[in-house]
Amino acid sequence: MSRASQLSVNGGVLPLIETLQRRAAELRIGVSTGPAGETLIDAGASVTGSLEAGRLMTEICLGGLGEVTLGSAPYLPNWPFTLTTRTSQPVVACLGSQYAGWQLTSGEGDAAYFAMGSGPGRALAGKEALFKDIAYADQSDTATLVLESGSPPPEDLVRQIAADCGVAPEALTIIYAPTQSLAGSVQIVGRVVEVALHKAHELKFDLSRIVEGTGTAPLSPPHPDFITAMGRTNDAVIYGGRILLHVTGPAADARALAEKLPSSTASDYGTPFAEIFRRYEGDFYKIDPMLFSPAEVAVVALETGETFRGGAVDPKLIDASFG
Amino acid sequence: MSRASQLSVNGGVLPLIETLQRRAAELRIGVSTGPAGETLIDAGASVTGSLEAGRLMTEICLGGLGEVTLGSAPYLPNWPFTLTTRTSQPVVACLGSQYAGWQLTSGEGDAAYFAMGSGPGRALAGKEALFKDIAYADQSDTATLVLESGSPPPEDLVRQIAADCGVAPEALTIIYAPTQSLAGSVQIVGRVVEVALHKAHELKFDLSRIVEGTGTAPLSPPHPDFITAMGRTNDAVIYGGRILLHVTGPAADARALAEKLPSSTASDYGTPFAEIFRRYEGDFYKIDPMLFSPAEVAVVALETGETFRGGAVDPKLIDASFG
Amino acid sequence: MSRASQLSVNGGVLPLIETLQRRAAELRIGVSTGPAGETLIDAGASVTGSLEAGRLMTEICLGGLGEVTLGSAPYLPNWPFTLTTRTSQPVVACLGSQYAGWQLTSGEGDAAYFAMGSGPGRALAGKEALFKDIAYADQSDTATLVLESGSPPPEDLVRQIAADCGVAPEALTIIYAPTQSLAGSVQIVGRVVEVALHKAHELKFDLSRIVEGTGTAPLSPPHPDFITAMGRTNDAVIYGGRILLHVTGPAADARALAEKLPSSTASDYGTPFAEIFRRYEGDFYKIDPMLFSPAEVAVVALETGETFRGGAVDPKLIDASFG
Repeated sequence: MSRASQLSVNGGVLPLIETLQRRAAELRIGVSTGPAGETLIDAGASVTGSLEAGRLMTEICLGGLGEVTLGSAPYLPNWPFTLTTRTSQPVVACLGSQYAGWQLTSGEGDAAYFAMGSGPGRALAGKEALFKDIAYADQSDTATLVLESGSPPPEDLVRQIAADCGVAPEALTIIYAPTQSLAGSVQIVGRVVEVALHKAHELKFDLSRIVEGTGTAPLSPPHPDFITAMGRTNDAVIYGGRILLHVTGPAADARALAEKLPSSTASDYGTPFAEIFRRYEGDFYKIDPMLFSPAEVAVVALETGETFRGGAVDPKLIDASFG
Repeated sequence: MSRASQLSVNGGVLPLIETLQRRAAELRIGVSTGPAGETLIDAGASVTGSLEAGRLMTEICLGGLGEVTLGSAPYLPNWPFTLTTRTSQPVVACLGSQYAGWQLTSGEGDAAYFAMGSGPGRALAGKEALFKDIAYADQSDTATLVLESGSPPPEDLVRQIAADCGVAPEALTIIYAPTQSLAGSVQIVGRVVEVALHKAHELKFDLSRIVEGTGTAPLSPPHPDFITAMGRTNDAVIYGGRILLHVTGPAADARALAEKLPSSTASDYGTPFAEIFRRYEGDFYKIDPMLFSPAEVAVVALETGETFRGGAVDPKLIDASFG
Repeated sequence: MSRASQLSVNGGVLPLIETLQRRAAELRIGVSTGPAGETLIDAGASVTGSLEAGRLMTEICLGGLGEVTLGSAPYLPNWPFTLTTRTSQPVVACLGSQYAGWQLTSGEGDAAYFAMGSGPGRALAGKEALFKDIAYADQSDTATLVLESGSPPPEDLVRQIAADCGVAPEALTIIYAPTQSLAGSVQIVGRVVEVALHKAHELKFDLSRIVEGTGTAPLSPPHPDFITAMGRTNDAVIYGGRILLHVTGPAADARALAEKLPSSTASDYGTPFAEIFRRYEGDFYKIDPMLFSPAEVAVVALETGETFRGGAVDPKLIDASFG
């Protein structure tokens, strides 16, 4: 793919990181230098953080290749404020950068650290099989990683991440915020396009055919309990998210994608996510992976000009989850 | 409050003022140097001005700590175009800067001048009791003040304002537009978050707990009559405004805030503002101060994750007011 | 008009063109140097292009004097993603620049080239009678033209365009995208304010009285067939577009404008545009010109503060057209 040589998700986020640093006081985030020399940005762990920090984090997750806006789009009566995410490079932005697919682990027992890495750094390390499928790799002297976590990685793990990314630890920026925080919740709701891309990949849809990704989901209220917070952010997408994809290739494939993509195709559909999670005793791998996608899907087949639809938002379930 | 030393509302608006000056012809505003050497920006008195000038004025009122967008959010059937205002520093942006709380008076009789000062300059002068409550003061070599007025202040008052702000008159920018103008109307509708903050303060809610303010209100049509114009801009908020606040502290307090915050708790609620104003023969102080707040309120208690609600928008009253 | 000497639509678009060039890979557009030395930007002919390229093209069409945003404004149940266009200089931005009014022709028979020129370059060439009516002319060393076309103009025509604009061919930028492309479709839907201005002109409304133009229309799905693609983009405006104009002058004129402006006043109203076009066997000039305008119109008479309305969006017709 020729774009691989031209688009740098790590280079693309530098202005956004500069913005986070410059507006740190306003956004209530903490910027410091970590033990290995890395730049640490706490957007919601020991600080309150902000919605705007979450919006910027989401654009950083997208590798600077998408736009995230907080606005008013009153399609869910009780939750009129929404997040809209769009990208003309959905594969690179969402799967090459935003997807939280890099397992980061360190230590054992009480000293154990675990987080899923998201953001542009993934495209330097290329640790995941997914990168072969999307044929994207970044080249950059700086790396940025985003963690849905309440604490920064320990020094040994930071050094390992930097080494995997091929950058000096001093050139690595790590931004972290827990699911329960303002910024964390925005950052996850902002995955409305990404989950669609990821499910399309699971469905074996040829990703190179997805040329535009546009989506909206309600801003979910944060919750201090991890499982409830995670539930709400997932429900924002699963029961409240709307997505529009523009795809090339045969219309029959677009039609099939629109049918299979909505969350309603999953066996676990119909219950708030936190309940499902508890039902399986916290074992993520028992949840039907088809659940992770937007409620409502429209797929435009550019080859024929047809629009195929599937699913629908469920205002009552959003009320039950956010309530 | 440590942020006091870090956030400068007067420094924050300099790029916005530069934008107003650069785009003066496009925005139909007048930029000149006043008798004391101050920069005068007429955004709607002897010029037509524009909605975009009003949008920028509103961001200046917020001390550069918030975002104002004009968009389409069709929750009021006849008034689909709306203004959305958001800030992650609602107290400093709205009360420390945007609130029109500084009484500016000069001369007597026919030569009398009166205006309420709004904008960042207030946080340099610190003339109002409110500043003690919010524990914010700015330090800056430049000052900016926004006046809802059809004429600029006389020279003696300008010199007094500059002295009160501790800046040279040449370092003072005064932006003014009457209520009846395009920019003036936008600037007032853009107070949808500020009125909520101000009423929360009246209700003795601990302001330091309000960490996010997000609001929407319909763009009201300007009117050449001052009272009607004032009525419409107020009604846009009182009967058409929606607000979302994120607060820390006990959920019971958040619940009480959501109950008391909507305009519907006021005895005068239910009639277009201009009518109420006329009923009291123009005596502002007879109007129930509880009326000045958004129609519809959602308060998220971050401590428990609960969302409390109060009030509702009233499309019929908006139709009656906007005509 | 004094603004004529101050507003440069060709100067105003330079930052936008720089953005297109810098983000070329992300936006999937082709940037090259043409045979006469002109800069050619292919936004959808031999490349896929993108919605964002279309959004930027639309802002270029507006001469940098307006804002175009892609968002979610769910007033048409099946087409929640919309384009909002606003300008405080509707006459210069829409008629002086955006309107596709410059006939560009070259060659004969198989070598014939034909396109309608849109964008800032028109205001340098001033070839159209319209420019006398709006009393606007630009002065600039650089020129930019936008073509709804699948191919760039031949060298002789490029040289002619440059000469007509009074610039060197090397200072000319030509951006082109066919109606069927992603960028092309956005660019046409983004004309929701322009068609209103143009029809107001046809209705002999004094254009200098229109001081604000704000509009929204649904993002139409592109179609590979030219006539269907053209039909959908037109229908987005004709049956799905909403517009708000602020005008000076007598309220009676504003009322008359609101009555006459909506597309529903046209004899051909009520059928998808592609069908109408085929009914007249592709003869544009047989279509009632009154059809080319937004579905729903609100006109604010600043002189009296009244808002006059006309027309209504037609969700069923949009479904029939986009379906």
